[in-house]
Amino acid sequence: MNKDIDRYLDLITKAMESVPLDREPRALYEPVDYCLKNGGKRIRPLMTLLACDMFGGDINEALPPAVGLELFHNFTLLHDDIMDNAPLRRNQPTVYKKWNTNTAILSGDVLFAFAGKYISRVPDNVLRQVTDLFYQTVTEVCEGQQYDMDFETQANVTTDEYLKMIRLKTAVLPAACLMTGAIIAGAPEQEQNKIYRFGESVGLAFQLRDDWLDVFSESTEFGKQTGGDIIANKKTWLTIKALELSNNRQRKTLQDIFSGSADNDDGQKVQKVKAIYQQLDIGKLAIETMESHYTEAIRQLGQVDVPGERKITLENLARQLLNRKK
Amino acid sequence: MNKDIDRYLDLITKAMESVPLDREPRALYEPVDYCLKNGGKRIRPLMTLLACDMFGGDINEALPPAVGLELFHNFTLLHDDIMDNAPLRRNQPTVYKKWNTNTAILSGDVLFAFAGKYISRVPDNVLRQVTDLFYQTVTEVCEGQQYDMDFETQANVTTDEYLKMIRLKTAVLPAACLMTGAIIAGAPEQEQNKIYRFGESVGLAFQLRDDWLDVFSESTEFGKQTGGDIIANKKTWLTIKALELSNNRQRKTLQDIFSGSADNDDGQKVQKVKAIYQQLDIGKLAIETMESHYTEAIRQLGQVDVPGERKITLENLARQLLNRKK
Repeated sequence: MNKDIDRYLDLITKAMESVPLDREPRALYEPVDYCLKNGGKRIRPLMTLLACDMFGGDINEALPPAVGLELFHNFTLLHDDIMDNAPLRRNQPTVYKKWNTNTAILSGDVLFAFAGKYISRVPDNVLRQVTDLFYQTVTEVCEGQQYDMDFETQANVTTDEYLKMIRLKTAVLPAACLMTGAIIAGAPEQEQNKIYRFGESVGLAFQLRDDWLDVFSESTEFGKQTGGDIIANKKTWLTIKALELSNNRQRKTLQDIFSGSADNDDGQKVQKVKAIYQQLDIGKLAIETMESHYTEAIRQLGQVDVPGERKITLENLARQLLNRKK
Repeated sequence: MNKDIDRYLDLITKAMESVPLDREPRALYEPVDYCLKNGGKRIRPLMTLLACDMFGGDINEALPPAVGLELFHNFTLLHDDIMDNAPLRRNQPTVYKKWNTNTAILSGDVLFAFAGKYISRVPDNVLRQVTDLFYQTVTEVCEGQQYDMDFETQANVTTDEYLKMIRLKTAVLPAACLMTGAIIAGAPEQEQNKIYRFGESVGLAFQLRDDWLDVFSESTEFGKQTGGDIIANKKTWLTIKALELSNNRQRKTLQDIFSGSADNDDGQKVQKVKAIYQQLDIGKLAIETMESHYTEAIRQLGQVDVPGERKITLENLARQLLNRKK
């Protein structure tokens, strides 16, 4: 199983390295190169290859669009980092910090073009469907990012609205990656839809895990700071659920902290918020919600009409993603 | 002739108005709507329809990609206005000024996705070629914008380098618009290439006209200020040519003014630069260069293998664009 994954990741790495970025003007392509070399787990293109393989397709046909989808993912990071004022990405300065905003905008735009170019390198008979899915996904990811920014200044966000936001911002892309692999393999439409929903549910569970890890992770690897979201006043599922369940006193404390009006240092902020989460058992509720999406994902995968042994790799990948400690 | 143009512009206007932007989240789509309602001459989509028509194609098939190409053009304006710090576009506040940079980035991104979506609404048998041309064009336009930004801080730009930059930034898009129309009409490859080169030459001539008009326009319509490029320290073909031909004293004056180190008010700047242009006859040289590109455009159009009367509308359009007074 992991032999497949390693071999596929190797293919993806080589294909990513062969994207022709050694060209002029350097001020445009150097930041793109920097952004791509900064790595990432390449989970999304891996999903494209695994889904293609599961449905009996030729993974060589799935490799170019898999690369395209990873390029698109990196494009979103480039532009999101500007919008989120993020100074670091994977412990390296973000493009807009290392260069400037204009560079990050334009290098992002050309990366988007490269993404589209690679995604269109599929056999003629699936080009339309792959293209349509891509643009639908891009549109939804932009909508998700907008909702995320809207929520920063919006008082009463519900957990349902939050889940809708992360579905768009985070979950539709892995779903589209899997579906692209299925399309290329010639899977019937209803099978494509099942694998899409599997990806959506995995994506939702993944983000909930991320929200949980930010507060409750025991890991100190890479010196990642616990409570980064709290320090940045970033509302997550945990915050929103806590606001829903809190009594007046707890709610006031949370609102003061997340609006930045309370006079706390970072450590105090994290400690106070974590205390309220613990009083309300928010961590457990988050894990339960994550697990319900994970269960739904496995249910969708279970219904896919291929022999069970062909599903094992994707099922294991989903489990690994959701059990990760950092 | 103009009856065709009016009818086509009417079709384009209606199609642009029917782009579905009345959707959530408003913070994402309202700026897109604002940007598109701000108008523009719709020359690029018109070129797609006229080229399709010239080669005997069905303009209804060319209308969606024509709209897509105009959406792409507006996407570039949205992002360029951020990079160029431009407060106004067609006398209205730019999106990044009216809202903010983040809004202009993300609304631009979703507009790019819409552009791609519309451009892909072509018959299956031409989808690949239209898609490939689109991504090649996007890449080149980004490269052109980067060279333009690079030139701001680069001392010795030659007129050849400048022409290469405007070919990428400005000329390849009308060329691609025309070629898309030709592809949809089923024109042979060599005819597609001729109409592409016609578009490139028209685009180059158009930009040279633009550079000339900024300094020598007699028009006071819309209160447009003569010498806007000079005031903004923006080097154009005129500046670069003047630097090439100037004596030491003139060169020093130009360099001081364009580096912002000279202590002049806007009126003095324009007056001094204009005086040097007149001493060196730069206006006349610019017109001659423009005309040589125009002549090349007409030569390319002349070689297109369709009856002469079918070329009249495009020829007239090119003439109108280059004889404009503002």
